Amino acid sequence: MDSNATTTEQKWSYLFEEFENPSSQNGKNILGGKGAALANMTKLGLPIPPGFIITTDCCNAYHANDKVSPPGLWDQVKRQVSALETKLGRGFGNPENPLLISVRSGSPVSMPGMMDTILNLGLNDETVKGLVRQTNDERFAWDAYRRFVSLFSQIVLGIEHEKFERVLDRYKAGTRMDSELTADELKEIVSIFKKIVVAEYFKEFPEDVDEQLKMAIAAVFDSWMGKRAVDYRRVHRIPGDLGTAVNIQSMVFGNLGETSGTGVCFTRNPSTGEARLYGEYLLNAQGEDVVAGIRTPNPISVLETAMPDIYRNLQEICNQLEHHYREMQDIEFTIERAKLYILQTRTGKRTGASAVKIAVAMVKEGLIDERTAVQRVSPEQLDQLLHPMIDPDDTTEVLATGLPASPGAAQGIVVFSPDEAEEMAKAGDKVILVRRETSPDDFHGMVLAQAILTQHGGMTSHAAVVARGMGKPCVAGASDLNINYSHNEFSVGDITVTRGEWITVDGTHGAVYRGKIPTVQPHLDEDFELLMKWADSFRRLLVRANADTGHDSDVARNYGAQGIGLCRTEHMFFGENRLEVMREMILATGAGNREKALDKLLPFQKQDFIEIFRAMAGLSVTIRLLDPPLHEFLPNKVELLAELTELKFRARQSGPGDMDLLIDEIADKRRLLRRVEQLSEANPMLGLRGCRLGIVVPEVTRMQVRAIVEAACEVAGEGVDVRPEIMIPLVSTAEEFKNQAEIVREVARQVMNEHGMDMNYLVGTMIELPRAALVADQIAEVADFFSFGTNDLTQTTLGLSRDDSARFLPFYVDKKIYPDDPFQTLDTVGVGELVKIAIERGRKTNPKLKVGICGEHGGDPRSIEFFNSIGLDYVSCSPFRVPIARLSAAHSAIRSAN
Amino acid sequence: MDSNATTTEQKWSYLFEEFENPSSQNGKNILGGKGAALANMTKLGLPIPPGFIITTDCCNAYHANDKVSPPGLWDQVKRQVSALETKLGRGFGNPENPLLISVRSGSPVSMPGMMDTILNLGLNDETVKGLVRQTNDERFAWDAYRRFVSLFSQIVLGIEHEKFERVLDRYKAGTRMDSELTADELKEIVSIFKKIVVAEYFKEFPEDVDEQLKMAIAAVFDSWMGKRAVDYRRVHRIPGDLGTAVNIQSMVFGNLGETSGTGVCFTRNPSTGEARLYGEYLLNAQGEDVVAGIRTPNPISVLETAMPDIYRNLQEICNQLEHHYREMQDIEFTIERAKLYILQTRTGKRTGASAVKIAVAMVKEGLIDERTAVQRVSPEQLDQLLHPMIDPDDTTEVLATGLPASPGAAQGIVVFSPDEAEEMAKAGDKVILVRRETSPDDFHGMVLAQAILTQHGGMTSHAAVVARGMGKPCVAGASDLNINYSHNEFSVGDITVTRGEWITVDGTHGAVYRGKIPTVQPHLDEDFELLMKWADSFRRLLVRANADTGHDSDVARNYGAQGIGLCRTEHMFFGENRLEVMREMILATGAGNREKALDKLLPFQKQDFIEIFRAMAGLSVTIRLLDPPLHEFLPNKVELLAELTELKFRARQSGPGDMDLLIDEIADKRRLLRRVEQLSEANPMLGLRGCRLGIVVPEVTRMQVRAIVEAACEVAGEGVDVRPEIMIPLVSTAEEFKNQAEIVREVARQVMNEHGMDMNYLVGTMIELPRAALVADQIAEVADFFSFGTNDLTQTTLGLSRDDSARFLPFYVDKKIYPDDPFQTLDTVGVGELVKIAIERGRKTNPKLKVGICGEHGGDPRSIEFFNSIGLDYVSCSPFRVPIARLSAAHSAIRSAN
Repeated sequence: MDSNATTTEQKWSYLFEEFENPSSQNGKNILGGKGAALANMTKLGLPIPPGFIITTDCCNAYHANDKVSPPGLWDQVKRQVSALETKLGRGFGNPENPLLISVRSGSPVSMPGMMDTILNLGLNDETVKGLVRQTNDERFAWDAYRRFVSLFSQIVLGIEHEKFERVLDRYKAGTRMDSELTADELKEIVSIFKKIVVAEYFKEFPEDVDEQLKMAIAAVFDSWMGKRAVDYRRVHRIPGDLGTAVNIQSMVFGNLGETSGTGVCFTRNPSTGEARLYGEYLLNAQGEDVVAGIRTPNPISVLETAMPDIYRNLQEICNQLEHHYREMQDIEFTIERAKLYILQTRTGKRTGASAVKIAVAMVKEGLIDERTAVQRVSPEQLDQLLHPMIDPDDTTEVLATGLPASPGAAQGIVVFSPDEAEEMAKAGDKVILVRRETSPDDFHGMVLAQAILTQHGGMTSHAAVVARGMGKPCVAGASDLNINYSHNEFSVGDITVTRGEWITVDGTHGAVYRGKIPTVQPHLDEDFELLMKWADSFRRLLVRANADTGHDSDVARNYGAQGIGLCRTEHMFFGENRLEVMREMILATGAGNREKALDKLLPFQKQDFIEIFRAMAGLSVTIRLLDPPLHEFLPNKVELLAELTELKFRARQSGPGDMDLLIDEIADKRRLLRRVEQLSEANPMLGLRGCRLGIVVPEVTRMQVRAIVEAACEVAGEGVDVRPEIMIPLVSTAEEFKNQAEIVREVARQVMNEHGMDMNYLVGTMIELPRAALVADQIAEVADFFSFGTNDLTQTTLGLSRDDSARFLPFYVDKKIYPDDPFQTLDTVGVGELVKIAIERGRKTNPKLKVGICGEHGGDPRSIEFFNSIGLDYVSCSPFRVPIARLSAAHSAIRSAN
Repeated sequence: MDSNATTTEQKWSYLFEEFENPSSQNGKNILGGKGAALANMTKLGLPIPPGFIITTDCCNAYHANDKVSPPGLWDQVKRQVSALETKLGRGFGNPENPLLISVRSGSPVSMPGMMDTILNLGLNDETVKGLVRQTNDERFAWDAYRRFVSLFSQIVLGIEHEKFERVLDRYKAGTRMDSELTADELKEIVSIFKKIVVAEYFKEFPEDVDEQLKMAIAAVFDSWMGKRAVDYRRVHRIPGDLGTAVNIQSMVFGNLGETSGTGVCFTRNPSTGEARLYGEYLLNAQGEDVVAGIRTPNPISVLETAMPDIYRNLQEICNQLEHHYREMQDIEFTIERAKLYILQTRTGKRTGASAVKIAVAMVKEGLIDERTAVQRVSPEQLDQLLHPMIDPDDTTEVLATGLPASPGAAQGIVVFSPDEAEEMAKAGDKVILVRRETSPDDFHGMVLAQAILTQHGGMTSHAAVVARGMGKPCVAGASDLNINYSHNEFSVGDITVTRGEWITVDGTHGAVYRGKIPTVQPHLDEDFELLMKWADSFRRLLVRANADTGHDSDVARNYGAQGIGLCRTEHMFFGENRLEVMREMILATGAGNREKALDKLLPFQKQDFIEIFRAMAGLSVTIRLLDPPLHEFLPNKVELLAELTELKFRARQSGPGDMDLLIDEIADKRRLLRRVEQLSEANPMLGLRGCRLGIVVPEVTRMQVRAIVEAACEVAGEGVDVRPEIMIPLVSTAEEFKNQAEIVREVARQVMNEHGMDMNYLVGTMIELPRAALVADQIAEVADFFSFGTNDLTQTTLGLSRDDSARFLPFYVDKKIYPDDPFQTLDTVGVGELVKIAIERGRKTNPKLKVGICGEHGGDPRSIEFFNSIGLDYVSCSPFRVPIARLSAAHSAIRSAN
């Protein structure tokens, strides 16, 4: 290692050209990211203003030694400065021909809270005159000095920026621009600035350039331990001993007239991925002028005609850097009197579309291999690609924010009831359904809405889950909304939005806008397909989809799903005509009437299964038996009660004729209410649901199994390869499983006999209760597969209702009590441990046990990483997440192979 | 072993006097319980009718060999029979002087479903004449024959009892008694019986006495594999290879005139424990006559004057048996023509009072040691002792049944509202509060009721938990009740009970009676105290109590509690005046108003703590910070809504003057409703409660800690040894704990400084979520103690709401899907495993960690056994369960020492 080159004294600093292998990880660790890039570009022979780097080790030594620089540092710095002096023929602090430098921080990982850049260091009352001579531009020189004094005072001496700004404002008198200040005025300003320094700092502004440099270096080191930086590291778990490097570089100027300029440039288009330079520049300007936005920069293409040599030079450098880094680069450059300098290069940020395009193109160009290409696209980028998004250039202000419950953006007119949503959508309107919260009663409206917006509920509330299942944008838990159903309006602060107004919902970012905000539509081209093919070649985990209908199954298969991991049969009951029959079944008294209602439901279910089996020919289809508590299918108790109270009151006021009618109505209503009350539960999540229903009311299990197996037999009769897997929900003991599995096997045998067929099918269970995980060995003895229902497992393991937690979860995540929302990213320490226990114990008694996961976490990249690491066979997620899961599974496999 | 005595042929049968050591476990295993007792009594020289026993091994051999008796059995039986013949001077099948025998089953463990006794075997058309000669009583002889034929036909040949009964009925013509039938009639009846046998059995009734005996023996063996016996064994996990013995004994008759008789006798009083013979007898009668209840038996004391010699003889035998078995005995005897025979002895069943009295007396008499005495009293018996019970002699029919939610019996008049309960109780009436279910709103009425009866809810519903805490009887989930609040009545089937009627509630057995049923009051005497002292000397587990007030703490300490394991601070908020202030706090907008309300609550809390600390001087007091969701303190949403609807309707109908008033009222109501709606949760059990409240609203934690520490400082200032332990509820991550513990320590430090005091106190947590158990190592690093909240831990681990599970739990337990109600007896396999994991992981990082349990299971004997075995430091239960927990802990310690 270079840093051990001398024996007597550690090497604390390197000239850009001096470090052996700056683009290695070691180089980055010692030189910081920015320094390593500068050193590397220097080695590549690019036009980099000369400079040197003080190492991160030095920063650590400084802090280890109570903020005293290690011995020898200053001698080394002086040697490096004199090397610069020699190279440039200027002198640091030389009044005749001064060398000016910039001082920047630069840690191995990019991090906010670190020190800002100090420019023009080396100026004082003497050297400023040398700068005038060098540039023949008095105004420029004093402007540079003015900037330096205020920046240094602010950053190194800690004097408030505002104090200097006030002086400038006085000189500009509110009308003139900075650039209109004359040299004489600037001289006065510098002199006033220095008085401010004495008043605030109790010492003179340092005229000694060595003193300036020493103080600037210490300021960089100090900023590493500044509150903002320390907080950021704690939150992002960045080790504190990385340290920061200090980059010291000779100045070049883009504001020395019309042959000078400054700009930024991407080697390829970061929005589209097109392989052409992309960026913008300004002539006679410094970097901060571009940022200030007072003048409009030119697109980089203008440079091609304006300064063809410079452009050609830039193009060559871009090619060289892309080939060197094998990555798209984001480059800062400066032109000083018609000479191009490169000031920084780094990996360019990009959109999902661009990421895919660039990754595929680079494979074709031979720059990277397929494995690297797959790793170059993040799941978040892919997600962008799959949904419409708000035009990134749009600047409309956000009306309200909530949870990003289902990605994508959509516009529509506001409606407040599912009936109205249905009616208007059928009439051709685009509607957005706005509800306090949604329930299965709202389903018919949700299906036809463009997007869903709710005031309450979390990432896994009914609205969120259903919306994700349908690939529709949803913002949930937008708690600033104040919805007034009776006035058909909602308000946010002072703003009121009434029924019929247009709004735009951005489910990707959890934002709501007034009006129609332009959106960008997704486009899945052959590059996408190719990248996904490569991803599939690396992954081990299978990816299935959660789908409840033939249509969803088709979508899922198109997105590459390798089967259905979860078909929720209850969703089928919410369709038109069906809810009525379902209620009939629930309200039935006596098994006979109940079976009659069930007989009516059977054909509906069967038809759904037929479509799903056809869509999933040759692939496994896991069908879960009825899971939710029955009262979910009944009208709301509170509303019923209000209706009843009103009816009773009317009856009291009415004449005898009306009274009779009303009394009948009251009796009906009361009967319904009684049943709703009987079925209502204090904690429905922990109540009579899942296999408990099937055990208490076995007729329901029988009907469902009959529908599944009849459908399977019929579709198999068409010559289709049908692979049903019947899943028993909410099991917590082997006895429960046996009870239901016995019914399943009996009915299946009977139906197959009726069809004269024999067919393989599996019977397995959801593992969604902690106890099930703990006794997985007992359950696995009798079950063919486990599917982890990590939504419910999270709810029970953490004692956390997903419907109710929205009120405090953000607070919890914010305070880092939970590292993440556990309904989005699996709590690997708690819930994950139960999953591990269950797999280990389950496979012990049943080595052939198939193990998958069908909770919302099946589509979450970080959770997929965990599922891959613990050896699950598959993940299952909503159809629209399938590509993301495929990519994440590939990433995990590649990482674990490394 | 005796059974291996011969080499060529196994010994399948033993004369009563033949077996070496019949009272050993081996004796019981081979001879069965009944046989071992007969053999033993014979060896003791008691007057036992001679007989022999066929071993359980023989039964197993019979079944192993496809229901063929093993070779040699019959030869052995014949040898034993001839030994009896020799001993008694009679011949089996000898028409001149016949030997009659009884055949009985008898397995090593007492078991229903086994074969009934066959009496008078050896009778046929010839030997019956010999019996006439022996007894000089023709009627007696034919009556014996008639009984034998019907019993044998029924038990051995499997012919329905009814077929014979019908014949008898015809002869009695509905008016005469069995004993009025003449000898001639009995002869006719026997002949008809035999024809029935041919018609049903297709064979003649076996006249051959050997054939009779062979068939009877086989019938005993067969009954071992009968459905009822097999089911019973499966349910009670009794191994099937125990087998049953066959007891064959010569007959004696209690119905041979006025010097004959039969009776049963306890060596001590099974109700009171008094050390005097207790029992009853009938002259000239057989056992079945006593059972039939046609004649009223005499108390055994009458025998002392009627037949003093017999009585003295019986008394001596009883003494001898008690000394031999060192246990109270339940003896059957027969007197045949002035000679006493003992037919059976076994351990006598007894009440709780009797059990304690006998155990203590036997220690004093030197019969048993203290350890044995402690083991002689079961927790269930102790429980009886601690509560009033329905007079065991009362025969009133049960009106309705429900869950035995809180033990004890009480009478009172029915009321349906807590307000009325309060009002009437304060006026001096004894009331029973009848509710669909109870909520904290009902608390003021529950406190003053004699007992509580609910239609809904399980063993751990609000009603049940509160009632147990107060030691008040409660029957919960009496689902046959149909309560009509508006008519102030409830009905069960056709019976309607209206407000003001007397009922009696038996919470020990879950029964409800109409009217005032006599009850027996508990009486805790010095024997009880002595026994508990002995129990305490054996146990390792400490026993604390769950108590929320000074009064409860006093009760608990009187019952021997060694501290408070759980003080629920929220119960304090339900008291008079306090609920108002609590609501004020919840409805407050802004932290300032909230703190004002909290300041009002502080003195209430503090006063409670002062009383508790005083009551628990020198003992630990664990105080849990606020746990339940806030909406529990607010009015019911449904009721509010109904009120609002009614108000709105009235407003519409009213004149302008009223309208104004109503509109104000509506606005108020609406504001309240809005807050209730905001706070209402889909699954409050998994919502914003426990430490989540304290994290979101830290002012509440601050107020509570201040109240605790101020109280502690004040009481300590009185010279009392105060040991507060502050418990943070519903923790699932170490971060939550740290957040709250920091506040606790900060406020405690502050208050102690204000008082100029320093005091030891602990800060710990409830472990009541699966995740907490899994990350117990992390939590234990920062916590001083764990207290397992096994109620909530059961709810989350099993995904089972205790409020809602009453609808299917009985069904589950009945179907053996759960072995027990998991809210009563800990689910050791699931929940228990988490407890074990938590203790193991917790002690790994904090070896000094104090570990206890404060859920309902802390008072359940079987759960205590488990808690003892896994090394908990203490259990905590309701004050009235403390003695039971002490005894159970002693039992567990003794068992684990063995």
